[in-house]
Amino acid sequence: MTQIAHALVLRRRPDGEPDPSDFDMVEQAIPTPAAGEVVTRTIWLSIDPYMRGRLADRKSYAPSVQIGEVMTGESVGEVIASGDPAFAVGDIVSGARGWQTHVLSKAAALAPIPKGQAPLSAYLGVLGMPGTTAYSGMKDIGRVKPGETVVISAASGAVGSVAGQLAKRAGARVIGVAGGPDKCLWVQETLGFDDCVDHRTMDLDAALSDACPQGIDVYFENVGGVVQQAVFPLLNNFGRMVMCGMVAQYNDASFSAGPNLGAVVGKRLTIQGLIVSDKPERFAEWRNLASPWVAEGSLKYRETVLDGLENAPKALVLLLRGQNFGKMLVRVGADPE
Amino acid sequence: MTQIAHALVLRRRPDGEPDPSDFDMVEQAIPTPAAGEVVTRTIWLSIDPYMRGRLADRKSYAPSVQIGEVMTGESVGEVIASGDPAFAVGDIVSGARGWQTHVLSKAAALAPIPKGQAPLSAYLGVLGMPGTTAYSGMKDIGRVKPGETVVISAASGAVGSVAGQLAKRAGARVIGVAGGPDKCLWVQETLGFDDCVDHRTMDLDAALSDACPQGIDVYFENVGGVVQQAVFPLLNNFGRMVMCGMVAQYNDASFSAGPNLGAVVGKRLTIQGLIVSDKPERFAEWRNLASPWVAEGSLKYRETVLDGLENAPKALVLLLRGQNFGKMLVRVGADPE
Repeated sequence: MTQIAHALVLRRRPDGEPDPSDFDMVEQAIPTPAAGEVVTRTIWLSIDPYMRGRLADRKSYAPSVQIGEVMTGESVGEVIASGDPAFAVGDIVSGARGWQTHVLSKAAALAPIPKGQAPLSAYLGVLGMPGTTAYSGMKDIGRVKPGETVVISAASGAVGSVAGQLAKRAGARVIGVAGGPDKCLWVQETLGFDDCVDHRTMDLDAALSDACPQGIDVYFENVGGVVQQAVFPLLNNFGRMVMCGMVAQYNDASFSAGPNLGAVVGKRLTIQGLIVSDKPERFAEWRNLASPWVAEGSLKYRETVLDGLENAPKALVLLLRGQNFGKMLVRVGADPE
Repeated sequence: MTQIAHALVLRRRPDGEPDPSDFDMVEQAIPTPAAGEVVTRTIWLSIDPYMRGRLADRKSYAPSVQIGEVMTGESVGEVIASGDPAFAVGDIVSGARGWQTHVLSKAAALAPIPKGQAPLSAYLGVLGMPGTTAYSGMKDIGRVKPGETVVISAASGAVGSVAGQLAKRAGARVIGVAGGPDKCLWVQETLGFDDCVDHRTMDLDAALSDACPQGIDVYFENVGGVVQQAVFPLLNNFGRMVMCGMVAQYNDASFSAGPNLGAVVGKRLTIQGLIVSDKPERFAEWRNLASPWVAEGSLKYRETVLDGLENAPKALVLLLRGQNFGKMLVRVGADPE
């Protein structure tokens, strides 16, 4: 077991697509916890689209990472030293703890994870922030009714795959949009969506129009760009756009124009943005609701895993290119025995 | 008193700005009511921006007027013959009855108007559809909180003037956008808005930014175009856009692009469309709420009146150009003695 902690710090802000050389690996002593603190070793690190925003010097809903700071991110880890009675050595916890092998945290900032119920990585994906995002988006904005048509972009991704399965459970006709035949096949055959449109190879306008003969009632937006352009004209009266992300433009320095909003009046559309942390109560609600579904295998998910903290930047690059398949993760340390 | 009824029918669909020659004046016999029907003479005809949509052969929330059909519109009239016990000769009523001097209506389609409480024209403006639109937009979408900053476009118009006064009553800082110094002066001095930006003479981006040092929490959208472009970047986190109309583009054959929607995610914006008839219960709610305010003079409004049914097309042209000042009306017949 390593006795030195490693961390990835931001070296320079990427111009366009991030590059692994934008980060520096630094060595640190493994810290010792004071009262109320806990030290963990990282097992799984979550890689998510929002991270591109943290690298930019752009005003956003959360502060940017500063040059020389450890890159932010959620992870699951094992307690190796505890100064707080709430946690014992060997406990498994999750939290927003950054791209590092060992983390000193306030005990209050950590959430305990039960052992033996689901693979630990699931607490960063289907049962964690992305799953909760899909749940909150559907519950608070989408409000899908039986028989409605729901379109999910990035349908095989960590958020989209859950959003679409929730729409199916709500009785909707669900159409995915994904990149490539493998993802589309999985979305239809494993996730059980009614159809999936490949935005890379098909005429998107025609394919979406064919897949949605009754128009679109709810669009769960993860990508923006050409997919949004194709979806928007198909929205029905009282349609809802759950605005979760627009990953297609996250590497862009300037953003292209959006749809003319006249249709928002005539069709009484609702276009509403979502940041999962605004409703923190949704995290526990979702974990309680979805854990049995994961245990019984009725809520499906998929992961792409890179090994080693040093591959975290590469994982982010692949994610932003859409070259992941399901939840993007970095395995930083071994699962506990 | 004329013994012949007149009506304006659509002669051809306007290309761009409507022209009075797009309508034909036709003569009709004054009808006789059957059981359950009522005949009225029109006193006031309402001219509203949505009417441009009815002239287009474009799919919208309501059917287009067909060539040769009487142009649609709300009016206030006096019962001159009744086949229904609910209405007597001399009663004053309102309804969606078209551009004509005499109207045969089903009794059930008419709403009685009380005599002696407010000028009859007010039931087409501040107490009617435009006032109800402002009320519903603020109640159902805007949800203004004390201390928030609210921007109202077309601030001196029939909807905007009420929306802004409601925002003031809710304790907000209210900024109007209007065309020309006369309107801006009236918006500030008579309506009591905190400030008003003249979109015709000022640098709109700079003027709005100066007028909204705390950003914008609610934007009541009546115009679209350059005003929307200037407002959008100033919206705060959790900002709301009440999408009531985009009159600046109603004469356009094709619509320009809108804002990039990435900010909807990061700022958790809500952009929501409003058609007042979707919540019909708001009409009576609003009339009950606002009638005492109109009677006591605490809810202000202003009207532009053209005389004669033949001037209805001209009134619509002027309205779409923003050359009205307050509610646009056509006086078709004399007030009752």
